[in-house]
Amino acid sequence: MPVNLQAPDPANLHAVPGVRIGTAMAGVRKANRRDLVLFALDEGSSVAGVFTLNRFCAAPVQVCREHLAAGHGQGIRALVINTGNANAGTGADGLARARRTCTATAQLMGVKAEQVLPFSTGVIMETLPVERIEAGLPAALAAVQAAAWADAAQGIMTTDTLPKAASRQVQIGGRTVTVTGISKGAGMIRPNMATMLGFMATDAVVAPGLLDSLVKQAADQSFNRITIDGDTSTNDSFVLMATHRAGHAAITDLASAEGRALSEAVFAVASELAEAIVRDGEGATKFIRIQVQGGRDLAECKLVAYAIAHSPLVKTAFFASDPNLGRILAAVGYAGISDLDQGLIDLHLDDVHVAHQGGRHPAYQEADGQRVMKQSEITVRVHLHRGDAQAEVWTCDLSHDYVSINADYRS
Amino acid sequence: MPVNLQAPDPANLHAVPGVRIGTAMAGVRKANRRDLVLFALDEGSSVAGVFTLNRFCAAPVQVCREHLAAGHGQGIRALVINTGNANAGTGADGLARARRTCTATAQLMGVKAEQVLPFSTGVIMETLPVERIEAGLPAALAAVQAAAWADAAQGIMTTDTLPKAASRQVQIGGRTVTVTGISKGAGMIRPNMATMLGFMATDAVVAPGLLDSLVKQAADQSFNRITIDGDTSTNDSFVLMATHRAGHAAITDLASAEGRALSEAVFAVASELAEAIVRDGEGATKFIRIQVQGGRDLAECKLVAYAIAHSPLVKTAFFASDPNLGRILAAVGYAGISDLDQGLIDLHLDDVHVAHQGGRHPAYQEADGQRVMKQSEITVRVHLHRGDAQAEVWTCDLSHDYVSINADYRS
Repeated sequence: MPVNLQAPDPANLHAVPGVRIGTAMAGVRKANRRDLVLFALDEGSSVAGVFTLNRFCAAPVQVCREHLAAGHGQGIRALVINTGNANAGTGADGLARARRTCTATAQLMGVKAEQVLPFSTGVIMETLPVERIEAGLPAALAAVQAAAWADAAQGIMTTDTLPKAASRQVQIGGRTVTVTGISKGAGMIRPNMATMLGFMATDAVVAPGLLDSLVKQAADQSFNRITIDGDTSTNDSFVLMATHRAGHAAITDLASAEGRALSEAVFAVASELAEAIVRDGEGATKFIRIQVQGGRDLAECKLVAYAIAHSPLVKTAFFASDPNLGRILAAVGYAGISDLDQGLIDLHLDDVHVAHQGGRHPAYQEADGQRVMKQSEITVRVHLHRGDAQAEVWTCDLSHDYVSINADYRS
Repeated sequence: MPVNLQAPDPANLHAVPGVRIGTAMAGVRKANRRDLVLFALDEGSSVAGVFTLNRFCAAPVQVCREHLAAGHGQGIRALVINTGNANAGTGADGLARARRTCTATAQLMGVKAEQVLPFSTGVIMETLPVERIEAGLPAALAAVQAAAWADAAQGIMTTDTLPKAASRQVQIGGRTVTVTGISKGAGMIRPNMATMLGFMATDAVVAPGLLDSLVKQAADQSFNRITIDGDTSTNDSFVLMATHRAGHAAITDLASAEGRALSEAVFAVASELAEAIVRDGEGATKFIRIQVQGGRDLAECKLVAYAIAHSPLVKTAFFASDPNLGRILAAVGYAGISDLDQGLIDLHLDDVHVAHQGGRHPAYQEADGQRVMKQSEITVRVHLHRGDAQAEVWTCDLSHDYVSINADYRS
């Protein structure tokens, strides 16, 4: 059961002029499910993306990097996404199959293979049945339409229980600019530069080069903040498409009023998509915000936040609603700050002051901890009292269902 | 159910001349359980120890470090161990209570407080009921005897399902030298310099200073190789006591024939104790050896081995006996080697060659992977092909019972 998350209402997902989407049932792994999504972009669009730092990155990630680098993000006309198979840990053969996906799409659309970006998600170290994708592409292309964002969100799901999509509109230069996106991912989630899969598009008019900055900033404020199990995927990809169709003067500076307006809309959609992934985390029963304050720099705040977020003992305590909060202090202690002074540490659980100067707060009552632990949304706040930096990470608990889902995923 | 582990036979645990052990039921957390253990050492004994690197180290760990530093490991006469409460995350008050344990023991035995080492294990961030320990100490002291190692192993258990002890005898200089030890720990296990609790004693005659080297080497070859959940405890302590009573000429060099004989016995006992902790890991159904070869240095081999050992996705696949082995490649990829070439990687599961040059081995059959995954003992071997270093780590799978145990531990 996802935590306070609903399927998006298609009526709230604004179409993005210049973007058409088609889906198909290609039978990549299972029959009768929508597992192939095609984004077709109008001529003149730009694309920027961030990808996994996993050194075992999937073949499609390697091809995406090549194609984006070749045209500096200009000239991309299509994105092809399949679920059911990650095409990762597949060596040179996997790379050839990812390229075949691009070639087949390019032939159908009358563009070049370098103008197509491939994406895959699913089981690792299995051969991609690229002939099924080739066979499914004509149907996906025939179905393209502007209003298919909800279908696309459905079509990229794997162990997700709900599709994930978000949309915003903002006024820029007297024009209405749209930002709409979808995401997927429920396990193997600890994005490192990007998430499992996230696709966003806008019709904003953006100067060349700015899109790269914008996608990186958006990832850092959204997908790079979340973790479910600490397993950085081989296929993490987060892509921002811009069709430049909105008709306002080009944004040339993200710090300008127009740049800020667009950035805020992009960040809002990215955050909503990233948060949705955690709320739909495999087996999740709780959504946990971990805020670490008072660090010397961002890096050490992140170390502490991720140590708490990844601790199986902390996560099982959340699942049990058991205020066994010493486990949080232990995680702070082993996070990797070698000169940490435990005598300075404060710990809050929502409004409850649990620990002060490294020990149990004199006024702390277990009943107060218990009350917060029973909630479906909890904020953990650790103050290190050694600087001014802070970081925030979002995660979920570790439940029996996480074990069941991952013990059964392939079976 | 522990994995291929039995309770030690008391008849196989050789007493160590100069060491007497007493236990008592002090009611630290629960009534009617043996939760207090006292080691009494003859005058002239030496003690060396390694302790957790968790910056939230427990109060007794801080006191141990002080007392060992004060006398350079000489003059220690007693070790006092309680379960039921870790006395960690307890601030200045916890430190005072750890000192009271030492003072009370010293008074009963007619020694100084600095000659006593305190150890605690159990729940974190709860006040240590030191008055119950003080009340229990006379009974423990009255009960001391040389042949109580099995009782001691029982007395230091927390979520362990079986007591853990090991013993070896070796001939040195025509004399029989004994090495006997006990350990505990089942969760919050990712020792960093030492394990949850491990106590070993020998009657070997060892020159001053050598004991420190010996305990560090023993920890590196045993407790520092194991992980259950990646949670480095606040209370990790591994201690080696030497009573120097065996009557042979003092060992002054660990590289001498006598030094090697003693080292091997110590390493064998330490390894057996460490392995027992993993075999009795919380919820464990499988014992997994992870060997990483062909790294540039030990550090990067360990990074990869621990990434695999800590991956919830890998651990749940082992639990399910599901050869979803791409998850292992993904963990190799995110372990943190920034210039790793995935095209060089080999993966074996026992004798089965699963992946070659970063992709599925052409001859690999899923049935072979399935056969190995069903075993209760599995060796994962990763070859990085970038150097000559290697590392080995022992771990267990992640099961429903791990979640149950840690969701219920305090309840």
